[in-house]
Amino acid sequence: MQNQNISHSPDQWSIIENDFNSDYIGKCEVIMALGNGYMGIRSTPEEKYLTETRNWFVSGTFNKAHDTEVTELPNIPDVIQMTLEINGRRFTLDEGQVKSYTRSLDLKTGELVRNILWHTDETGDLDIEFHRLVSSHDLHLVAQEIRIKPLEKDCQIKVVSGINGQVTNSGAQHFVEGSKRFYDKKVMHMNQVTTESDIEVFINVMHRIVLDDQRLDHDTLIMMDRRKIFGHMSFSTSVGSQVSITKFSNVGTTRDLEFVDMDRESIKKELLNRIEGYWDKSFQEVLEASGLALKDKLWDQARVEIDSSVSFDQVAARFAMYHLYGMMPAHDKRMGIGAKGLSGEGYKGHSFWDTEVFMFPYFLYTRPELARQLLEYRYLTLPGARKKAYENGFEGAQFPWESAWLEDGEVTPVWGAADIVTGKSTKIWSGFIEQHISADIAFAIYQYYNVTGDEAFMEDFGYEMLFETAKFWASRLEDGQDGLLHINNVIGPDEYKEHVDDNAFTNYLVDLNFELSISFAKKVRDENPKLYKDFDKKLGLDSWISVWEEKRRKIFLPRPNQDRVIPQDSTYLTKEIIDLTKYKNQEHVGSLFHDYNLTQVNNMQVSKQADIMMLFYLREDLFSREVKLANWEYYEPKTLHDSSLSLSTHAIIANDIGNKDLAYELYTRCREIDLGQNMKSSDHGIHAASLGGMLQVVLNGFGGLRILNGKLRIEPNIPNTWKSLTYDFHWQGDTLRVEVSQTEFVISNMTKNNDMVEFSYKGNDYLLREKTTVLLDKVSK
Amino acid sequence: MQNQNISHSPDQWSIIENDFNSDYIGKCEVIMALGNGYMGIRSTPEEKYLTETRNWFVSGTFNKAHDTEVTELPNIPDVIQMTLEINGRRFTLDEGQVKSYTRSLDLKTGELVRNILWHTDETGDLDIEFHRLVSSHDLHLVAQEIRIKPLEKDCQIKVVSGINGQVTNSGAQHFVEGSKRFYDKKVMHMNQVTTESDIEVFINVMHRIVLDDQRLDHDTLIMMDRRKIFGHMSFSTSVGSQVSITKFSNVGTTRDLEFVDMDRESIKKELLNRIEGYWDKSFQEVLEASGLALKDKLWDQARVEIDSSVSFDQVAARFAMYHLYGMMPAHDKRMGIGAKGLSGEGYKGHSFWDTEVFMFPYFLYTRPELARQLLEYRYLTLPGARKKAYENGFEGAQFPWESAWLEDGEVTPVWGAADIVTGKSTKIWSGFIEQHISADIAFAIYQYYNVTGDEAFMEDFGYEMLFETAKFWASRLEDGQDGLLHINNVIGPDEYKEHVDDNAFTNYLVDLNFELSISFAKKVRDENPKLYKDFDKKLGLDSWISVWEEKRRKIFLPRPNQDRVIPQDSTYLTKEIIDLTKYKNQEHVGSLFHDYNLTQVNNMQVSKQADIMMLFYLREDLFSREVKLANWEYYEPKTLHDSSLSLSTHAIIANDIGNKDLAYELYTRCREIDLGQNMKSSDHGIHAASLGGMLQVVLNGFGGLRILNGKLRIEPNIPNTWKSLTYDFHWQGDTLRVEVSQTEFVISNMTKNNDMVEFSYKGNDYLLREKTTVLLDKVSK
Repeated sequence: MQNQNISHSPDQWSIIENDFNSDYIGKCEVIMALGNGYMGIRSTPEEKYLTETRNWFVSGTFNKAHDTEVTELPNIPDVIQMTLEINGRRFTLDEGQVKSYTRSLDLKTGELVRNILWHTDETGDLDIEFHRLVSSHDLHLVAQEIRIKPLEKDCQIKVVSGINGQVTNSGAQHFVEGSKRFYDKKVMHMNQVTTESDIEVFINVMHRIVLDDQRLDHDTLIMMDRRKIFGHMSFSTSVGSQVSITKFSNVGTTRDLEFVDMDRESIKKELLNRIEGYWDKSFQEVLEASGLALKDKLWDQARVEIDSSVSFDQVAARFAMYHLYGMMPAHDKRMGIGAKGLSGEGYKGHSFWDTEVFMFPYFLYTRPELARQLLEYRYLTLPGARKKAYENGFEGAQFPWESAWLEDGEVTPVWGAADIVTGKSTKIWSGFIEQHISADIAFAIYQYYNVTGDEAFMEDFGYEMLFETAKFWASRLEDGQDGLLHINNVIGPDEYKEHVDDNAFTNYLVDLNFELSISFAKKVRDENPKLYKDFDKKLGLDSWISVWEEKRRKIFLPRPNQDRVIPQDSTYLTKEIIDLTKYKNQEHVGSLFHDYNLTQVNNMQVSKQADIMMLFYLREDLFSREVKLANWEYYEPKTLHDSSLSLSTHAIIANDIGNKDLAYELYTRCREIDLGQNMKSSDHGIHAASLGGMLQVVLNGFGGLRILNGKLRIEPNIPNTWKSLTYDFHWQGDTLRVEVSQTEFVISNMTKNNDMVEFSYKGNDYLLREKTTVLLDKVSK
Repeated sequence: MQNQNISHSPDQWSIIENDFNSDYIGKCEVIMALGNGYMGIRSTPEEKYLTETRNWFVSGTFNKAHDTEVTELPNIPDVIQMTLEINGRRFTLDEGQVKSYTRSLDLKTGELVRNILWHTDETGDLDIEFHRLVSSHDLHLVAQEIRIKPLEKDCQIKVVSGINGQVTNSGAQHFVEGSKRFYDKKVMHMNQVTTESDIEVFINVMHRIVLDDQRLDHDTLIMMDRRKIFGHMSFSTSVGSQVSITKFSNVGTTRDLEFVDMDRESIKKELLNRIEGYWDKSFQEVLEASGLALKDKLWDQARVEIDSSVSFDQVAARFAMYHLYGMMPAHDKRMGIGAKGLSGEGYKGHSFWDTEVFMFPYFLYTRPELARQLLEYRYLTLPGARKKAYENGFEGAQFPWESAWLEDGEVTPVWGAADIVTGKSTKIWSGFIEQHISADIAFAIYQYYNVTGDEAFMEDFGYEMLFETAKFWASRLEDGQDGLLHINNVIGPDEYKEHVDDNAFTNYLVDLNFELSISFAKKVRDENPKLYKDFDKKLGLDSWISVWEEKRRKIFLPRPNQDRVIPQDSTYLTKEIIDLTKYKNQEHVGSLFHDYNLTQVNNMQVSKQADIMMLFYLREDLFSREVKLANWEYYEPKTLHDSSLSLSTHAIIANDIGNKDLAYELYTRCREIDLGQNMKSSDHGIHAASLGGMLQVVLNGFGGLRILNGKLRIEPNIPNTWKSLTYDFHWQGDTLRVEVSQTEFVISNMTKNNDMVEFSYKGNDYLLREKTTVLLDKVSK
């Protein structure tokens, strides 16, 4: 892989860009983005490029740029940009001679490094390094360091660096122009307030310049412009010397939980004090503290070790874990995870079903307290979900398709890209009729309870969400002429089919939602009468149980037809079948829309992503292998995988139905969504759900970690290219380790909080005390 | 001059850039900006550069981005940007080999042309021309044409072009995201509404592609993004062929006078119809129509011919006339002229005293109807001026220092650049205490009346403004311990002196304001009793006359001291004198502020610009040549000319005091503010007042055209480098022509509406019927 542009280090800890091309700058801006859950920064170079995108987001700071727009995470004023002028020559990789170049992100330490040997007539050969990190130790801190070593000519260096508040979200300005100040000839400061949500953001930057270990007492000429404060610093260095320019920046906001009881002036002062605390610190010290914190918070908590002949397999797992860490607001349960994490403007920082169905399982098995937190976030949005249900004429709680700040309710935008036939913007229906998310959340609660047995969570948060979503579905079902109950006019997971009736995935998940509500309601009634009474008082629970039972008996659940194919919805199988060769495996997704508009696509048998396959994954016990196989053969050829949520699910199902090679191929394609050689695919931000999905392929697919009817089942089946897979996971208070080879797997209890752990393998039940070895049954199912 | 970067064509009609350097892109963006009074567009290249600024303004469309900001002209969505990809290579002058390059603005036709011979490995030699114009025929229209001739290789060409609404004013977004649409597979459309003033802007663009006179029926792939609609067009051409891509764009707004009675939908339709009307028109046809209109509106109306050994002298005059035409909203008297015209964000499109004192005289002598319109604009702002006076505890009308839309009143921003000592933003006091503008407007009214004798104007607008400003001044004067009346705490023209008492310029202009109000009030009383009665009823005129007379008797007017120096204000002469060598004639203005803050500068004898000199120009009869000379010698060395308003006034005074060489040198420096080789000086926009000032140096300085006590005086004194100067000017309904040589001048009446015209030359009175020749008195005054 070393001859390709995106490669990795021999220790499988760093991803590396080997060649810089400003036409494809978005790729590494995103896949090398830095984050710590509190903030995320796109890895845009210090020097400016025409094609660049600068993004710096702080979790939860949602704002509506205007009444007519939906709320989004605003870009806060940029600090990353730094302009270097060396002997009168502006540094840019688009000019001069780039004699060598690498950029790498060390996933272990979170350090981003560029190593460049640059030559121009004016400067001679120059060794330039750029270092950068977002601290995992001090969540508010960003550190940068530029190291310049002239190899041939003495250099006069000018650095222009500061804070640029002229940034927007693709033209939408979220901030009122605030104030700026240069404090004590040391710290540049800017504070700005969001236009609608009234969140104040405070940003400070401070520079130190060191020449061969000697700190320079440099003069800074301060320039203020509209929404800008920049300092000009000049100094010189000679051949054989090294000069380093360190920039420390911090940010804090009035939304931050830690500042929630402080007045604005005090927050500002606190952040100023904190940045001044770095006055005598070196970049190296800051890096070490951050690396230790990252080890503590991530790498010591989760283990996914892959010994594969394709070394990218291990790198990809670490890559996914690193980014999921960076986007998870572990510091504040009032915030969810955005569909692009904190790495891009795409999807505006909103949370979708992506969280519960794609990312949640990874957190659940490795950091159950974070999985709990994600569900608590949903609990805190219940008032908005109740309001949405009420406004649509339903009962209970209807979770928004897109969710942002707690009180925001539904935040899905209404208008999308151009319709190629009419020339108008396309209406986005998801916010109105993509309703399965309420059942997806119920499913996640069930999963959480199965894995953790956390009764306190259920009592405080889980039951209420289960009951409220069940109430919503009960009121949502429609009477059909067949005497059954139907869910008409929805969008299922496959978003190329709008306004369909009886989407199989949706109906089956709703059925489960009822099942769970009924059984848990009865459990509470039997085991905790006081709580039951409280729920009855608050939600009318007693009378709902029989309603749910009645509805569940009558809900229409599509069955396999004579060819064993389950209709994805009531009309899918009747639609036109077209030749999709042109659109399958395209470099860019959505190529179908160059030829057809959504109305036309709606009338063809073509799917964006897994739909029935997703059903097979979440409710695997309901369908036979033969049915799964028949549906695979029917639907996969009609699926364009235009959603990044598609491949990981297909990989797991391919493994389930025994097609191991196909599973690995699909896994590889899934891995390449962000880490592949397509240099455009990540421009709008990282594919967070795909990262979660990829880890599910490893753990729950190849690693065989599944729950069936509340019971642990471990049926590993690793790819032929893998020598072994080792992973730790959380189960009912214990950490279990599974080491899988091609012939056996060993399962060990690392914590032994429970005397005994039960699990099954291929129909046989096992009891684990300390360590158990299971020989793999290599006969194909 | 041909070896320098900014040169001109042999016919002295075009300014030319000979070399492109993207580090200095602002210069020609501004000096080659296109405008027609309705709109102005910065001449940013089609292809993007990091250093570029894109500006497109429509006169009068003021909006406040936020309550805390002042209103400004918003950048409307950009249409100029067009991306070219040829054989896979993106066209940019920063890459490939630029074998030849010129960019020229033809002042006569208003056409902007770039001629480029570009070479890359992929494309071979390519001949590329870019043509652009803002139509003077259809004020809403912008036309662009790219002509590509492959010289070595056949070319596959991709053009990406459309409308980009992601623009801001340095980060301030003035528009709500509107709608976009592709109509009839022909016209891309975007409409957006300003956030506060609720002005809707409609923009349409349409493309035509012609290969060797054959129109191509090209496909357009439309891409919509946030605030963006772009079309992708692909086609090929071969060696020896030429392909041209023509883009017609139009804009209209709900602020436009012509649409004021139409509903929004009708305006939108009307503009769509109009752009479709160009479907079969060529760029050449549009250019011809526009050129004819420009001839009719500008070049046939005003004549300034300079036969100089320095050919830039003629070019500069045409340059000034072209830009003053382009920024003058001749179509709508509800609008003023911005201090940077329509060429940059600088000064936000606001009108200052620059209009009346620097630009107005040119319009007055060449297009008196436009001069009248500019005064009517001020008349329409009277309610705001009355409000400002009232709110400050004064009577009458106090005109705002910065003026925008009619109802806006004072719009001077309150905070400016960084104070280098305190690190804080500096407070801008002009809006509060730079008050002389009210007297400047009175002066302009007097000038207008002198030149035109337009009684109707005076009755409808002029008198009222004179009386109201005099009332303001009467209430503004303060009693001093010396028994006289003073004007304390002001800023005079020299803005490096804030909070001064008795600024000489201000006090003398106020004295004139009283003098005019008194004499005109008496004239109205005597000649038009009915009108007098109306004014008395409306303004209490009768009782004010005696007040004004009383105040005028007691107003303190600073006299020359024993050294004949008039104190610029009550404390200037007592302040510290410092060595200014370091700051005089700097490449960048304002260099003093790298070492001192405004408080410190306030306490030194250093001036930003003409102050006493300005007084000598406007009230020349009050001071002897000796006094002028003494003050010149005292003040000029202390003046940094950091304001572009400074040099033209100094040039005129230098000529007045007989120092012809110095006058010419100062004139040259004034001309070079925009047209010189300093590539950074125009970045924020054209220096509109300096252009007006430059024409005043030519007409009123070298050309000797002056009014003294209401009488025409012509005392030409042209530079030694000039063979002749010929100019036409308006006088009392006639167009007079003056042809000056080094030995004589000939004055002719071109229209002969008046039997006889009186004028004086060096104390002698002349009567002009058809043509008079006057021998120049070459003895120094």
